[in-house]
Amino acid sequence: MKFSVLVNQLTQKTPISANEGTNPEIKGVSAIEDATANTLSYIEGKKFATLINQTEASGLILPQDETLQAQATARGIAWMASPQPRLLFAQAIALFYRPFQPTPDIHPSAVIDPSAVLQENIYIGPNVVIYPEVRISSGVCIYGNVVIYPEVRISDRAILHANSTIHERSQIGKDCVIHSGAVIGGEGFGFVPTPQGWYKMQQSGCVVLEDGVEVGANSNIDRPAVGETRVGRNTKFDNAVHIGHSCQVGENCAFAAQVVLAGGVKVGNNVLIGGQSAIANNVTIGDGARATGHSGITRDVKAGEIVSGSPAVPNHIYLRSSAIYKRLPEMYRAFKRLAHKK
Amino acid sequence: MKFSVLVNQLTQKTPISANEGTNPEIKGVSAIEDATANTLSYIEGKKFATLINQTEASGLILPQDETLQAQATARGIAWMASPQPRLLFAQAIALFYRPFQPTPDIHPSAVIDPSAVLQENIYIGPNVVIYPEVRISSGVCIYGNVVIYPEVRISDRAILHANSTIHERSQIGKDCVIHSGAVIGGEGFGFVPTPQGWYKMQQSGCVVLEDGVEVGANSNIDRPAVGETRVGRNTKFDNAVHIGHSCQVGENCAFAAQVVLAGGVKVGNNVLIGGQSAIANNVTIGDGARATGHSGITRDVKAGEIVSGSPAVPNHIYLRSSAIYKRLPEMYRAFKRLAHKK
Amino acid sequence: MKFSVLVNQLTQKTPISANEGTNPEIKGVSAIEDATANTLSYIEGKKFATLINQTEASGLILPQDETLQAQATARGIAWMASPQPRLLFAQAIALFYRPFQPTPDIHPSAVIDPSAVLQENIYIGPNVVIYPEVRISSGVCIYGNVVIYPEVRISDRAILHANSTIHERSQIGKDCVIHSGAVIGGEGFGFVPTPQGWYKMQQSGCVVLEDGVEVGANSNIDRPAVGETRVGRNTKFDNAVHIGHSCQVGENCAFAAQVVLAGGVKVGNNVLIGGQSAIANNVTIGDGARATGHSGITRDVKAGEIVSGSPAVPNHIYLRSSAIYKRLPEMYRAFKRLAHKK
Repeated sequence: MKFSVLVNQLTQKTPISANEGTNPEIKGVSAIEDATANTLSYIEGKKFATLINQTEASGLILPQDETLQAQATARGIAWMASPQPRLLFAQAIALFYRPFQPTPDIHPSAVIDPSAVLQENIYIGPNVVIYPEVRISSGVCIYGNVVIYPEVRISDRAILHANSTIHERSQIGKDCVIHSGAVIGGEGFGFVPTPQGWYKMQQSGCVVLEDGVEVGANSNIDRPAVGETRVGRNTKFDNAVHIGHSCQVGENCAFAAQVVLAGGVKVGNNVLIGGQSAIANNVTIGDGARATGHSGITRDVKAGEIVSGSPAVPNHIYLRSSAIYKRLPEMYRAFKRLAHKK
Repeated sequence: MKFSVLVNQLTQKTPISANEGTNPEIKGVSAIEDATANTLSYIEGKKFATLINQTEASGLILPQDETLQAQATARGIAWMASPQPRLLFAQAIALFYRPFQPTPDIHPSAVIDPSAVLQENIYIGPNVVIYPEVRISSGVCIYGNVVIYPEVRISDRAILHANSTIHERSQIGKDCVIHSGAVIGGEGFGFVPTPQGWYKMQQSGCVVLEDGVEVGANSNIDRPAVGETRVGRNTKFDNAVHIGHSCQVGENCAFAAQVVLAGGVKVGNNVLIGGQSAIANNVTIGDGARATGHSGITRDVKAGEIVSGSPAVPNHIYLRSSAIYKRLPEMYRAFKRLAHKK
Repeated sequence: MKFSVLVNQLTQKTPISANEGTNPEIKGVSAIEDATANTLSYIEGKKFATLINQTEASGLILPQDETLQAQATARGIAWMASPQPRLLFAQAIALFYRPFQPTPDIHPSAVIDPSAVLQENIYIGPNVVIYPEVRISSGVCIYGNVVIYPEVRISDRAILHANSTIHERSQIGKDCVIHSGAVIGGEGFGFVPTPQGWYKMQQSGCVVLEDGVEVGANSNIDRPAVGETRVGRNTKFDNAVHIGHSCQVGENCAFAAQVVLAGGVKVGNNVLIGGQSAIANNVTIGDGARATGHSGITRDVKAGEIVSGSPAVPNHIYLRSSAIYKRLPEMYRAFKRLAHKK
């Protein structure tokens, strides 16, 4: 479509300024480093200014920065500008790209227990296995080789990617996405020490994912001995995240790859956890709190607090302490001199 | 069943005191926060005392604490008390909950090489793939979409959950549980640097899991170039644990989620490793040692020692050093003053 | 084969010295601790000298160390010596061990879209699912229950192990090995914050693995919103590695288990990353750099640099600072005395 048409379509959602230039034809979206003619690309800020001089993109989404805009104009690149260029580019991608999703169909090789209740417009791919008493709502898409244990409920339009496993009694909300290899509702790690060895605590509870939750590839969300492990609406987990038994995670959170929540952790709404962070048993994290990557959180975190390090401390302390960490050798020498003088 | 009957059944295993109150009917087990009438719940200690005042559970398992017991009695809640309330509750769950396990059957969609030897009372679910020369003992349960490579041996009553993969020559002991997505016996990470690049070392060894081992979802236990990677009786691994080639792990250990053992690590019996800890190549960990979560263990750990931090140090040192970590900025300022005075 | 024949075969590749002794028959390879007669084993260095006195191996590969060689001769063990005993042993394993690989065949239970293009000599195992427009070159081996999404291209002799998933548009190079449970080309973690919650950025890009790449079990390599996530020739990843969207990894790298690369990370050639290390968004790592295990890398690393710790610092600083970490309590007491004196 023409660049001007694109601007119009995107403007319906977000206020933007634009310079259409020669109003080029835009046929797709691209990364700025390897853009070709007739594609639209974007940069997020000044830091990437030099890329404007090198790109072959015909259109750009820019931040509201007049220098960058002048730079694009000088190269004859059509541009539009927004306070949130990344959001605008995401909306542009959605105009050009439709993710693959098969048309509704039940593949004959799927093995579905006759007690399962299936609504309309469902795709169930090859070799899917569905154990007894499962209920699947309309518009659900289940890719090849997924396995669903008994009494699972899958709500409208949820997507289960290949080779994922949904264990007994799990409830998957509307529009959830479970990525490939993820395991939802597996047994919590419940072993009680006795003089005769570990006594296995049966895990009779279940996992509840509220609407709009996404769970990354090869992530694991465990069910508890009793009650629920629950993840709130629109919370997003990256790959290989582990949510232990009985955790309660709020709404609109985002956890990066390989985050671990031990058992019984309570996380509020709008919480961001950086990659490879771990939270110890029964810790509570307040609304809007954040942890930077690689944190080890062993105590409660207040609403809005930002923590870092292992054991995690407030981020402003961490930044100063970690900067000094590399000066410990000189401090130690000073300390030795001090000790010697006395 | 009546509360008094429940007390009798559990007393056969553990000495307990009890107050039957109105001897309510108990129909199930529940988490104390969301218990309903006619369910049994528990608390582990004083820390959860306020929950006794709020719960609607009809019965409670309590620790041996007269204040908590009086609190329950005052609310008309029947209770029993034990020095190990969590163990007693686990035993109570086992009276009410039977985990799902299909009746023995070989599903016609399973693809089983004719050379496989199968004993009686085996369940093999839909779309399971069994390569040549596999031996499966009686009572084994293999859920849908499991893949078993050649020459694997699976002993009595082992359970393989959905989408797990068992590689060539692995030996899975009696009563082992392999959770969904786990990979047992995959190739160890063996690449030898040469001027021409990595030379791949074939991994001709195998993995041996002794009886009663549990391996969490999406965990990986690698086979070595020669010899065995071995996990001792009744050792339990949580999700996403990685055991490198040639590791020797003892009996009755428990490793929390995302623990990594590099190659050739030797771990004694009764060792506990906290979540997201890593142990470097060829390190030896003594019997009964413990590592708290997020530890990075680069040196041998003696029997009974508790270590923490990265690089791991004795826990009592870690507790003091990490407490001082956040005071490094003021120490550094003092050090600068000191340096200035000289 | 006779030990002398073995020496001849291996000498064709690497210069070695040898003492054939009684020229024993060698029937296989073994770990030195549990070697039996008529097997060949090896040790890497002096550290393992005592094992020479205990082993029952009939032949040994030794380093170029006359003491160790004399020790073997004294016990009547035939030996050969090399500056790289581990490489020589890897070459010896390759003479005795052939990894299992099925003969080319398309199993009738595989569900292959008719639009797929398959060259000759391909093995496609039971219950494999292949979505539309996939191209598979000659000699490829796809084990049971693998799922391949649309428009994937798999080049000559690549091996896809059981239960792995290859997402849309991925390109798998020649001789790549994808281990069990790995997920290649799943959606990058792209959610843009808005006042209305997370806006999902469609991931229209793809993953490219160049020739000779290996990806460990349950690893995840994500595709980006636009452009490519790319892994260079002969780079090797251990299990549970996470490569975020848009990362560019060079050639001949090796990443140990549970390494995490966030989004947009650029890694040069010949880079070694230790287990459970994480690299933050958009960081650049130069050629030949190294990170020890458990590192948290938040800034660019220069070519050839070795870094450690979290946040990562040059290794020589880390070694000294971490050694002093455990003396922080005494330093703090000295600091308090100093503060008191003023």
